[in-house]
Amino acid sequence: MKKIYLDFAATSPVKPEVLKAMRPYFSEKFGNPSSVHYFGRQAKFVVEESRRIISQFLNCLPEEIIFTSGGTESDNLAIKGLINALILSFSLSHSSHSISSLENISGSVNRHAENDKFSRKPNNKFIPHIITSSFEHHAVLHTCRDLEKMGLAEVTYINPDRDGLIHVEDVKKAIKPNTALVSIMYVNNEIGTVQPIAEIAKIIHKFKIYFHTDAVQAVEYQNCEIRKLGVDMLSLSAHKFGGPKGVGILYLKKATPIHHQNIGGAQEFKLRAGTENVAAIVGMGKAIEILSEKRKTKNEKLLKLRNYFIDKVIKNIPDVRLNGLQKFRSPNNVNFSFKYIEGESILIHLDLAGVAASTGSACTSGSLEPSHVLLSIGLSEIDAHGSIRFTLGEATTKAEIDYTIKNLERIVKNLRKISPFTKK
Amino acid sequence: MKKIYLDFAATSPVKPEVLKAMRPYFSEKFGNPSSVHYFGRQAKFVVEESRRIISQFLNCLPEEIIFTSGGTESDNLAIKGLINALILSFSLSHSSHSISSLENISGSVNRHAENDKFSRKPNNKFIPHIITSSFEHHAVLHTCRDLEKMGLAEVTYINPDRDGLIHVEDVKKAIKPNTALVSIMYVNNEIGTVQPIAEIAKIIHKFKIYFHTDAVQAVEYQNCEIRKLGVDMLSLSAHKFGGPKGVGILYLKKATPIHHQNIGGAQEFKLRAGTENVAAIVGMGKAIEILSEKRKTKNEKLLKLRNYFIDKVIKNIPDVRLNGLQKFRSPNNVNFSFKYIEGESILIHLDLAGVAASTGSACTSGSLEPSHVLLSIGLSEIDAHGSIRFTLGEATTKAEIDYTIKNLERIVKNLRKISPFTKK
Repeated sequence: MKKIYLDFAATSPVKPEVLKAMRPYFSEKFGNPSSVHYFGRQAKFVVEESRRIISQFLNCLPEEIIFTSGGTESDNLAIKGLINALILSFSLSHSSHSISSLENISGSVNRHAENDKFSRKPNNKFIPHIITSSFEHHAVLHTCRDLEKMGLAEVTYINPDRDGLIHVEDVKKAIKPNTALVSIMYVNNEIGTVQPIAEIAKIIHKFKIYFHTDAVQAVEYQNCEIRKLGVDMLSLSAHKFGGPKGVGILYLKKATPIHHQNIGGAQEFKLRAGTENVAAIVGMGKAIEILSEKRKTKNEKLLKLRNYFIDKVIKNIPDVRLNGLQKFRSPNNVNFSFKYIEGESILIHLDLAGVAASTGSACTSGSLEPSHVLLSIGLSEIDAHGSIRFTLGEATTKAEIDYTIKNLERIVKNLRKISPFTKK
Repeated sequence: MKKIYLDFAATSPVKPEVLKAMRPYFSEKFGNPSSVHYFGRQAKFVVEESRRIISQFLNCLPEEIIFTSGGTESDNLAIKGLINALILSFSLSHSSHSISSLENISGSVNRHAENDKFSRKPNNKFIPHIITSSFEHHAVLHTCRDLEKMGLAEVTYINPDRDGLIHVEDVKKAIKPNTALVSIMYVNNEIGTVQPIAEIAKIIHKFKIYFHTDAVQAVEYQNCEIRKLGVDMLSLSAHKFGGPKGVGILYLKKATPIHHQNIGGAQEFKLRAGTENVAAIVGMGKAIEILSEKRKTKNEKLLKLRNYFIDKVIKNIPDVRLNGLQKFRSPNNVNFSFKYIEGESILIHLDLAGVAASTGSACTSGSLEPSHVLLSIGLSEIDAHGSIRFTLGEATTKAEIDYTIKNLERIVKNLRKISPFTKK
């Protein structure tokens, strides 16, 4: 049986050109980029070449690109790195050390001399405030909760509306004198809604607040030029767009204070220690190159296919709801709630029919908790449990969508027959 | 010109069998192990298979293996993870929460109920004490220094002797009532000396102290069976033994308290979030499998070659010193100080002759600081600057060593002619 993969938001196959580009850096050109000899220089060269390609794509400086092990690490470095740097900066400015001694802390970069809102507190304890949303990926959400538990930050979680959109006004209202960071995702990973990042940036920068966005689900379909977005930090993960697993990026705007999290050697401008994952970094650069070449035609094709999928399911299956607005939505994302039945059951039956979908983020699959994303947009626990996500990819065909719809109709019908919740 | 690679401690080429094993997991079997469908289960299966292979090699339980992005992350997770968990446990036991509520902290594991030395302090601030050595890899050393700077730990750095060995008695003497962790490397990465891990473990466990060892340079040549070593945590990095870059292991003994550092999804027993690097994990398993098959013959061959190298250099070149004892030394490591000249200059001339060596850890190359390892065993700054490390691999031949010695003789002679420090 041919398998149909409709879970591209969970991970995507490495593109053949990407794997080809990576090949030489495993066994032949295998040097450690930190080595000064021939083998090391060879590796260093391609790491920097990849940094250059990615910086062009993001329209930023090469030295603003930090290579990490993936989206989760990038989110952790952005959030914990900023909060740690601010706390360290504050405690030094209130100890016998002078503020300039922060420069000497290995791995701490502090170039925000003009931004003194965090260093003129009358009392001796500074707790920065973070604004984030209640439907972020767990890499952001759990990191914020962890900082709260450790007593290192206070956090406001703003809710999206029922359409899955964050309102700029809600962000503005949440700002407090000690607000240091806003972290709002670019595209939601479960319902695909696109957030107004540039508008949020405009508002919060007036208040001298740093802005991070998790753009893991955005990079393939949305404009990620930093100058248009106006963010200070942006996270990407290569395996979501045809690159390999185990590598990601944190875009880090110059002058953003950050304290290293993976501590050791002097790699990545002393901000991320550990031998560079050369082959994976090369692969990520190649994937970015491919991405920018044919984005427009791919987006148009997927948008058509996605709308076809949505329209046909809503027409053919009763008691179904599209989660998240259709208008401001990633062209690859479809997320339905089917009343009276469980998403997990649909998933298993689809799997038996050869179709791979998801009940939410792959990172939370297997958990029996209802999706925090669907709860945040106002679904009941029961409706959240009845949800299923399909995410399309470049290779997805109309025939695959038709096959999926046909099976979905059959499965939903059969499950509803045996569901205790169904109106008889 | 044929290149001779004598920098295997910096990184090693991926073995052909390893790359072959990894191949299918990039573009064909590309699923996310957290996905419940066919593609996900396929990926999950091989990740768990690799965990099983590695646990057999280390003689531990599969669930005691945490996959990370490499040695540096493993060291960070071990050290910061333990210290954070203890501090959190202490602060909870002194707040309105009960100690058992630690169990509910996502990513915190606390099974050391009997070990109450950290929870019965009269005052309200608990600062754990760490004992480490002054010649650890920077992933351990800088992590410890960072905890000091953040006010989260106090650290004692014990010195090795002039031969490059840590004395068990020195560790014992450094123990204080609040000592929570000892972190001593198994094999030093610059001078290859093998530390008495099992003896240290015996002593410190009497004091209910946790023991971590960075075994990154040990795994290829030393016995790493956990039951023989008696450690609670052990770090490995795949690219040092024929596996790919960007993947490593933290062995974490059951009942060791640890707080997650890379925070997000529920991967790796909730202790290390982020999509598993499937291909790399498969490769690491394969590399471990190969390693255990032919270790004995490889060790004997390398030991002979290494001793030949050392003897011939000492015989043919005047004013040379072998750094680190020859007896308790990794069979792949040679580290010389040549009086009156700079190691960097030797390195550049060797590179021109096609020989790749190192002046110390790759992670600190390019820095003009003298090696902290060589200073810690009592070398003067000048002698430390005159040092060079050669690390052999399985593929190294006698002809390569002869070629290297011939060039080394010529280069040292020429450099000394023009050195201002040479006794004329």
